[in-house]
Amino acid sequence: MNTDLKTLLGAVRPLDAAAMAAARARQQRLAKPPHSLGRLEDLSVQLAGITGELGKPLKKRRLLVFAADNGVCREGVASAPREVTLRQTVNLARGVTGAAVLARHFGAELDVTDVGIDADFACDGVRDAKIARGTQNFAEAPAMTREQALAAIRAGADAAERAANDGVDIVGVGEMGIGNTTTAAAVLSALTGLPAEKTAGRGAGIDDEALARKRALIDAAIARWNVDPNDPVDALCKVGGFDVAAMCGAFIGAAARRLPVVIDGFISAVAALCAARLEPLCAATMIPSHASLEPGYALAMDAMGLEPVLRLDMRLGEGSGCPIMFAIADAAQSVIREMATFGEAGIDDGYLADIRANRAFQGEA
Amino acid sequence: MNTDLKTLLGAVRPLDAAAMAAARARQQRLAKPPHSLGRLEDLSVQLAGITGELGKPLKKRRLLVFAADNGVCREGVASAPREVTLRQTVNLARGVTGAAVLARHFGAELDVTDVGIDADFACDGVRDAKIARGTQNFAEAPAMTREQALAAIRAGADAAERAANDGVDIVGVGEMGIGNTTTAAAVLSALTGLPAEKTAGRGAGIDDEALARKRALIDAAIARWNVDPNDPVDALCKVGGFDVAAMCGAFIGAAARRLPVVIDGFISAVAALCAARLEPLCAATMIPSHASLEPGYALAMDAMGLEPVLRLDMRLGEGSGCPIMFAIADAAQSVIREMATFGEAGIDDGYLADIRANRAFQGEA
Repeated sequence: MNTDLKTLLGAVRPLDAAAMAAARARQQRLAKPPHSLGRLEDLSVQLAGITGELGKPLKKRRLLVFAADNGVCREGVASAPREVTLRQTVNLARGVTGAAVLARHFGAELDVTDVGIDADFACDGVRDAKIARGTQNFAEAPAMTREQALAAIRAGADAAERAANDGVDIVGVGEMGIGNTTTAAAVLSALTGLPAEKTAGRGAGIDDEALARKRALIDAAIARWNVDPNDPVDALCKVGGFDVAAMCGAFIGAAARRLPVVIDGFISAVAALCAARLEPLCAATMIPSHASLEPGYALAMDAMGLEPVLRLDMRLGEGSGCPIMFAIADAAQSVIREMATFGEAGIDDGYLADIRANRAFQGEA
Repeated sequence: MNTDLKTLLGAVRPLDAAAMAAARARQQRLAKPPHSLGRLEDLSVQLAGITGELGKPLKKRRLLVFAADNGVCREGVASAPREVTLRQTVNLARGVTGAAVLARHFGAELDVTDVGIDADFACDGVRDAKIARGTQNFAEAPAMTREQALAAIRAGADAAERAANDGVDIVGVGEMGIGNTTTAAAVLSALTGLPAEKTAGRGAGIDDEALARKRALIDAAIARWNVDPNDPVDALCKVGGFDVAAMCGAFIGAAARRLPVVIDGFISAVAALCAARLEPLCAATMIPSHASLEPGYALAMDAMGLEPVLRLDMRLGEGSGCPIMFAIADAAQSVIREMATFGEAGIDDGYLADIRANRAFQGEA
């Protein structure tokens, strides 16, 4: 592992236990049955641990999107042509893709980084951090060099650090890259040992034949390039993509800067898993959003012990699930700040004692 | 059935099929894989059918909350004392309960109606439509007369009509009433024929003994009062509550005025089921929000064929799940209005044809 990545991972510290204890104590005093606000309560505790404050508003929101092309598309594993990566990256910056509309709706800024689109271009709102014009086709060669993987991780960490420096309260991590359900499934298979039959789905909409091809070449590449299941960087090099690597870097960078970071769908979850495998403490700053329909999503989340709160049957990518979650996380902060305690609500201590004494139920809740 | 209710139910018309077809056609043209925005797409189609417009913004939002006491609390089926209904209704109007904070966070107004709190009081922000100071204890007598049930339904419909007259774009339906998981479970058992073992849970937090008592007295009352399983008004009279009846009226009133109406948790779902049983067309204007932890919730939703999108493990009531859903529904409207079509996105017809030709996947999605 190189020095830069080691330094970055070393900067990730445990959450603030005292702030979390204070948040838990306040939730106990709020006028409601114990844990009756469920995941909103858990979010307020986690956010206290990340930020070190109780109920900090999450008004400045930013979606970090990484775009890249994938050499493996030459094998016919994606339903859309390669050019769509460039088109939709430009459209994202123009504010007219699904994620761009949702980000605007929920008051989130966009930070779009080109880490490997297969085109020379310039576009307002797309930051140039191109590693190469697409990866190698991992059916024929490792997708990238270790140096390239580390550079992509650095580009992702840079985006998180920019957000922290700009006073952003919460970020989300998304992508744009035709073929990246193939690379994400390959990385997931490499890290979990699961066959591609479990990890790879239809992405944007391939047919049975293309799906069979996609799965076969994932399994073959993991074996052929002898991927080390204990080294996420090796998995990213051999069968990953520049976008997935950069997203991994964004999750690490967010953790290092104590920035709450929302996981989008399948690709985002695999990148988050890479970060959590490199440094388990990274998982503590992650906030799941929606359950992607792509089958590998649940496997990646299970591997991190995380559970999404939204069931929207979405599979668009681009970070599209994050903006809704920014609003929900901010709502959790409003609740812990603004709800009355039992004392303020004029509900006497007898009720409080009764409801707290009910240990059996508290255990269940 | 009395004339007023008959007129109200007769005003409920099917959704606007032409507007729904136009929304579906536009979703097909937006630059994304078919149905990749899942439930957000479905919401935009449903909202077009309800409002008759494509992508109408849902900015004016209102939470309708109905508060009442329940005679059955005298049997020791609730964890909180009766006085908490009044306290928390006042606190809701003061803006310091969980639902009040969430409503404010998501820019929703509150319309709080007292349909049966067991106290004589006056409070700014609590509308007086009291039917009686609490229902009868249904272990000893039918909870209310048929006239009282109809008056409560009318009070609920009035709140929905006020919202429509005030130009509100979307409403949610919540409640405040100690003991109302017992009455809601009883109504659900009466309408579905399921024993209370399936429909009744721990509410705000009762112990095993109280739960056994709650279940036994529900089953006994349905038999003793000979509840007609095909008449929701009879179920509301015999084993319901003023809050549940008013909420049922709010769902009907919203449907009659073509107002999108969000279902909160268990009590709200049972009230929605009453409305849907009285007039099946009512279900078309309903929007589910979160999956309540109370076990009867899923049964009521299954009975209407509805599926929640939020898994927040909440069980607070008060309409607390609705404000988040107002924001999600409004986001769905932004997407259908503001996303680029394939043509606008510069993605050629070849891709469009390819992706559309993939019928196997479209069927699955």
